[in-house]
Amino acid sequence: MRTHSLSLFLFLSLVLLPASSRAEVKVSEATAACIECHASTHPGIVEEWRKSRMSRVTPAAARDLQEKERRVSFAEIPSELADVVVGCAECHTGRSRDRKAGFEHNGYQVHTVVSPRDCAVCHPVEAEQYGKNLMSHAYGNLMRNSLHLDLVRSIAGVQMMKEDKVVQRDPDPESMADSCLHCHGTMVRVKRMETRETDYGEMVFPVLSGWPNQGVGRINPDESKGSCSACHTRHQFAIEMARKPYTCSQCHKGPDVPAFKAYEVSKHGNIYAALGKRWDFDAVPWKIGADLTAPTCATCHVSLLTSPDGEVLAERTHRMNDRLSWRIFGLIYAHPHPRSPDTSIIRNKAGLPLPTELTGEPAPKYLITKKAQKERRGNMQKVCLSCHSERWVQGHFARFENTVKTSNEMTLTATGVLLSAYQQGAARGLAEKDSLFNEAIEKQWVEHWLFFANSTRYASAMMGADYGVFANGRWSMSRNIQEMMDRLEFKLKGR
Amino acid sequence: MRTHSLSLFLFLSLVLLPASSRAEVKVSEATAACIECHASTHPGIVEEWRKSRMSRVTPAAARDLQEKERRVSFAEIPSELADVVVGCAECHTGRSRDRKAGFEHNGYQVHTVVSPRDCAVCHPVEAEQYGKNLMSHAYGNLMRNSLHLDLVRSIAGVQMMKEDKVVQRDPDPESMADSCLHCHGTMVRVKRMETRETDYGEMVFPVLSGWPNQGVGRINPDESKGSCSACHTRHQFAIEMARKPYTCSQCHKGPDVPAFKAYEVSKHGNIYAALGKRWDFDAVPWKIGADLTAPTCATCHVSLLTSPDGEVLAERTHRMNDRLSWRIFGLIYAHPHPRSPDTSIIRNKAGLPLPTELTGEPAPKYLITKKAQKERRGNMQKVCLSCHSERWVQGHFARFENTVKTSNEMTLTATGVLLSAYQQGAARGLAEKDSLFNEAIEKQWVEHWLFFANSTRYASAMMGADYGVFANGRWSMSRNIQEMMDRLEFKLKGR
Amino acid sequence: MRTHSLSLFLFLSLVLLPASSRAEVKVSEATAACIECHASTHPGIVEEWRKSRMSRVTPAAARDLQEKERRVSFAEIPSELADVVVGCAECHTGRSRDRKAGFEHNGYQVHTVVSPRDCAVCHPVEAEQYGKNLMSHAYGNLMRNSLHLDLVRSIAGVQMMKEDKVVQRDPDPESMADSCLHCHGTMVRVKRMETRETDYGEMVFPVLSGWPNQGVGRINPDESKGSCSACHTRHQFAIEMARKPYTCSQCHKGPDVPAFKAYEVSKHGNIYAALGKRWDFDAVPWKIGADLTAPTCATCHVSLLTSPDGEVLAERTHRMNDRLSWRIFGLIYAHPHPRSPDTSIIRNKAGLPLPTELTGEPAPKYLITKKAQKERRGNMQKVCLSCHSERWVQGHFARFENTVKTSNEMTLTATGVLLSAYQQGAARGLAEKDSLFNEAIEKQWVEHWLFFANSTRYASAMMGADYGVFANGRWSMSRNIQEMMDRLEFKLKGR
Repeated sequence: MRTHSLSLFLFLSLVLLPASSRAEVKVSEATAACIECHASTHPGIVEEWRKSRMSRVTPAAARDLQEKERRVSFAEIPSELADVVVGCAECHTGRSRDRKAGFEHNGYQVHTVVSPRDCAVCHPVEAEQYGKNLMSHAYGNLMRNSLHLDLVRSIAGVQMMKEDKVVQRDPDPESMADSCLHCHGTMVRVKRMETRETDYGEMVFPVLSGWPNQGVGRINPDESKGSCSACHTRHQFAIEMARKPYTCSQCHKGPDVPAFKAYEVSKHGNIYAALGKRWDFDAVPWKIGADLTAPTCATCHVSLLTSPDGEVLAERTHRMNDRLSWRIFGLIYAHPHPRSPDTSIIRNKAGLPLPTELTGEPAPKYLITKKAQKERRGNMQKVCLSCHSERWVQGHFARFENTVKTSNEMTLTATGVLLSAYQQGAARGLAEKDSLFNEAIEKQWVEHWLFFANSTRYASAMMGADYGVFANGRWSMSRNIQEMMDRLEFKLKGR
Repeated sequence: MRTHSLSLFLFLSLVLLPASSRAEVKVSEATAACIECHASTHPGIVEEWRKSRMSRVTPAAARDLQEKERRVSFAEIPSELADVVVGCAECHTGRSRDRKAGFEHNGYQVHTVVSPRDCAVCHPVEAEQYGKNLMSHAYGNLMRNSLHLDLVRSIAGVQMMKEDKVVQRDPDPESMADSCLHCHGTMVRVKRMETRETDYGEMVFPVLSGWPNQGVGRINPDESKGSCSACHTRHQFAIEMARKPYTCSQCHKGPDVPAFKAYEVSKHGNIYAALGKRWDFDAVPWKIGADLTAPTCATCHVSLLTSPDGEVLAERTHRMNDRLSWRIFGLIYAHPHPRSPDTSIIRNKAGLPLPTELTGEPAPKYLITKKAQKERRGNMQKVCLSCHSERWVQGHFARFENTVKTSNEMTLTATGVLLSAYQQGAARGLAEKDSLFNEAIEKQWVEHWLFFANSTRYASAMMGADYGVFANGRWSMSRNIQEMMDRLEFKLKGR
Repeated sequence: MRTHSLSLFLFLSLVLLPASSRAEVKVSEATAACIECHASTHPGIVEEWRKSRMSRVTPAAARDLQEKERRVSFAEIPSELADVVVGCAECHTGRSRDRKAGFEHNGYQVHTVVSPRDCAVCHPVEAEQYGKNLMSHAYGNLMRNSLHLDLVRSIAGVQMMKEDKVVQRDPDPESMADSCLHCHGTMVRVKRMETRETDYGEMVFPVLSGWPNQGVGRINPDESKGSCSACHTRHQFAIEMARKPYTCSQCHKGPDVPAFKAYEVSKHGNIYAALGKRWDFDAVPWKIGADLTAPTCATCHVSLLTSPDGEVLAERTHRMNDRLSWRIFGLIYAHPHPRSPDTSIIRNKAGLPLPTELTGEPAPKYLITKKAQKERRGNMQKVCLSCHSERWVQGHFARFENTVKTSNEMTLTATGVLLSAYQQGAARGLAEKDSLFNEAIEKQWVEHWLFFANSTRYASAMMGADYGVFANGRWSMSRNIQEMMDRLEFKLKGR
């Protein structure tokens, strides 16, 4: 075990950071102590952090900027944090003492899993907004909804032959963490402490379940929800990365949510791919026209946007549906956004935990009003209007709303075929106390709304047309209904 | 309503443009007037334009370059346009008076939808070539071909349950614009005029149907065909963007035309992705070896190419099949390119609007001759030969032609299964006055040629092998035929 | 026919290369002679080579570097090669005299197809390692394994209708070269010599079969295996390109091996895409943290990695499974890596050329031991640990190993359905001396392990979760088993 001192701190400040930024950098003694070993144990992390803004700017300096240029939102901050840069210790030791997952490490009380509460020391507004975001509830919305959980089981579980029948084993925790919960977030808990031999002698560390994970709705040991590093990837925390579309594509590229794919083939995606290298992805505020000439995901859904001369076009938000009137994916029918980010409380008239009936009518008590939808649409349109004419925008949204309607109609038809199969005994559903998701015809139905109707809506919303035609779009809906009809016919034959 | 003056014009010339280019810039009075309001109403557009070559170079200066370096092709140009840069007014007011979609706006007669006729003022040769390009006829070739239209309806229409049967509702115009016509182009018409309150008082604007749209075959209010901004994205109009493959991927990435995907996994795509950042995408002419070391879509299909010392390897063309001998996608069988860009005139021996019989024989009257095919292949091979040896190129093309043949043979087999289904009453086709595209087995057949045979050919043409094997290629054809056979068997069971 | 001389050589040295590198460049007389004509015949190739390190650094200079910085591994080199840069002649004339494919060309004995033996003059260690790599045996492992060959035939062959039955024609050599062998490598042979008229008069050239090709297991005219240019793309041979993931994506992107796709949506892929432009892809050794902050394919699987202060974290290897304990794709079940790169020698207990039984038990005699697996896992983990904590890495690998197990279990179930179909006469397999791959239910089974189980494992290994859930992952396995059950049911109906 080594000692550390102020002289070490000064030495490190001089030696460990690039010459250009040395003048301003004040690394805390505790962080200097961390770096002393970790720079050789995990050089990748430490070097990455050195490239970050966190390693160069103190909270006090960050707060001193003009309001629109600020990347922090705290009113007050503990004095010991104000004038040192944000290093290892600032995030991994604060509040560690009263934590279940904190542990003693080289004379410091540290915690492995940095949670939104840690980030909220400097970014309280963003943390609060994010807490109201659907994403922060992604774990519970999946795991505490009996229907969603049933779908999860049918996917991540293991099917086994048992006397010519296929039976299903529930998924183990590792499979869950490796599939749905990778994006939705795991529940991270301390399983036990273990003693390990290291380069620096014997040490004690916690063994965590559900770890590693950076899912958006991770349940942290401190009971907070989410992982800021889902989008603000550690340890560089580059706003450039969060603003580029690859961050969103980590979870929003698959057939269930092909946002990135639709974006890629849109005009916006084309402009970004061809010319984006010359844009300023680091500027705060983000000035449309000056810093960028076409939107990425963050532009439309998250960032503080201004005109080149500083007029605010959209306020920064980490409740990402502030500019969205419809929820277009993940559920059977597109519907107005839920009021509460906790959707596990929703019940439709039939008593199911769904925001619509199986026939598509919304469960209005749990969903935002038409007025709120209009307001959110207005928020989004203000972004659009910075590059597009009034009529352009009106035309675009009229089409999108029409596509919400027709894609829902197509889903109603697919649902009709499934219900008919139940009625005629060609499949077993809720009435038979069987899963909605375990038979082939049910899986076709799931693909209808989870892949195809949804892809069609994304293509419309983001003008990436092919995802609304041949790439899992209208073509697939149209084919799927006919294939469901055929399957039903074959099931009923010879009975 | 504001006034504008020469002093404003001079002021704007000085203030609105980057210092580096101020000296040469002459903005017209009319454009200065546009910018005065629109710089704050739509900052994104105006800033984008400011980054464009259009905002810096006058037509006269563009014409003064050496012939091979020229980006304009006019012989003469109206004197009032020659010596001002190409700004808002130059494109949006010219010829507006005699247009259906023109309207009075702040003292100017303007039009929203810029058409190829506007671009042809400076780029007449390109506009003429493009008029002979299949793309410019993409609207009519889809909508005025009874079979294609039937396919369109089966995709974009809405299927509804009606007493245990699924019936189809024809697609509404919004769905059409949101799907097939997004790429093919809509028909843009003035529906009515509307009066709107704006930041600058009450104003009158046209309300357009089919708007927004930048499809390649858009029918414009002036009856011209196409939208140059499909590829030359407004308002930066960067040749860099048109030359990068993302532009083409807007419409050529889906399973129906996976050109971009095949390119991406080819050697060419690999070289571009890894090293392209150092190439000069702005140089005219485009010098192989000096400006780029591997082709993008534009290199092989469009651009004027020279050797580093200026020898012309390929002439610029906007009739993009000038270097293509086979049409490999979109129709049942690959076939020699059609003679006329208007393919709605084609009839095969059976009287169907198809360039081949259902059994694959071409309809020679409407297709280019073997001699013309050879000439076009020669045009392309001259590009290949700048980096590849004679035998390399011969070997590549021999493989490709073989793949055209074998993929057509596989389609013939799939067609045989479908015809057999018709014959045995397991499906209903033209003989029963039913659609060719509305039943599951028919949709399997469509995927065979529209997705799989075609993907196989793209993979071969562009050396992106996996799209010819497992990614919708030969594997999918082989599986599809067996699945069609099984479906036919199940349909016939127990009758 | 032209003559060439020392003065020409000196002239070329001065004129043909960029000013910055002129001082050090010594081009051989022979290469100068090549360039004289080929600079105008194939300007693309020559210009590309001029941008390469090969054109600037002599083998002697390359050898003079510190050991870790060396890109060459020879102990001795023929003196005539030591002090000239590596140009056309150095690769295309060496050892040509004793080659089947060598031919006289302008006074030189040259060969078209550069093989690993040519590269081994400077890179003998890498060539030897690669010879032990599975990839170098990719041709034989496919073509000399009766089951694999049967699968190949079922894909690349042509299915034809014959009296209402579909029969299969074996694939022709062009189709093979255009599909499976594009990546696996063709067999390149001299078919005949031909005389051709060229710009420089009549010349004689060999006509090669299986050409062009850069497959990883290409059988060269000199009987060596592989093509270094599969990854080290000619003629720039940029290490930057080999290290960027697009190179691997040429063959590792499709549904059969979605490594690139899983990488793209992983944190690693996100970091690379957003920030990689600032990394140093040319540095040798590759210093984690300093040169790069997230891995590409090469980082984890190939490159010599050090910490910023030079500690070796991983040795360079061209036997790419040195850091891999499981083979997770291409075969029915994931299994320990084979001992020999020649897998055509493997026989399971049932006598089939498979590394496992049809029920999943490995054929241990041919596979690496648990101890060897542990060692290889350790090699990989040392790379992981440079950025991740011990527990992070343990947690990740525990999940991956669990996914290997559960995906194998799911494959066992799918295999059970197929075997049941055989038993009940609903399909024809090996017992009936029929192909395992030609019927629809068999093709479903193939997709199960070749696409879905495998995608699930890639997603786990590389943390690209969606490829383990909805994008050909667990969802697809789960659906596929139910669809196989239904197909079996329909097949058995009414018998």
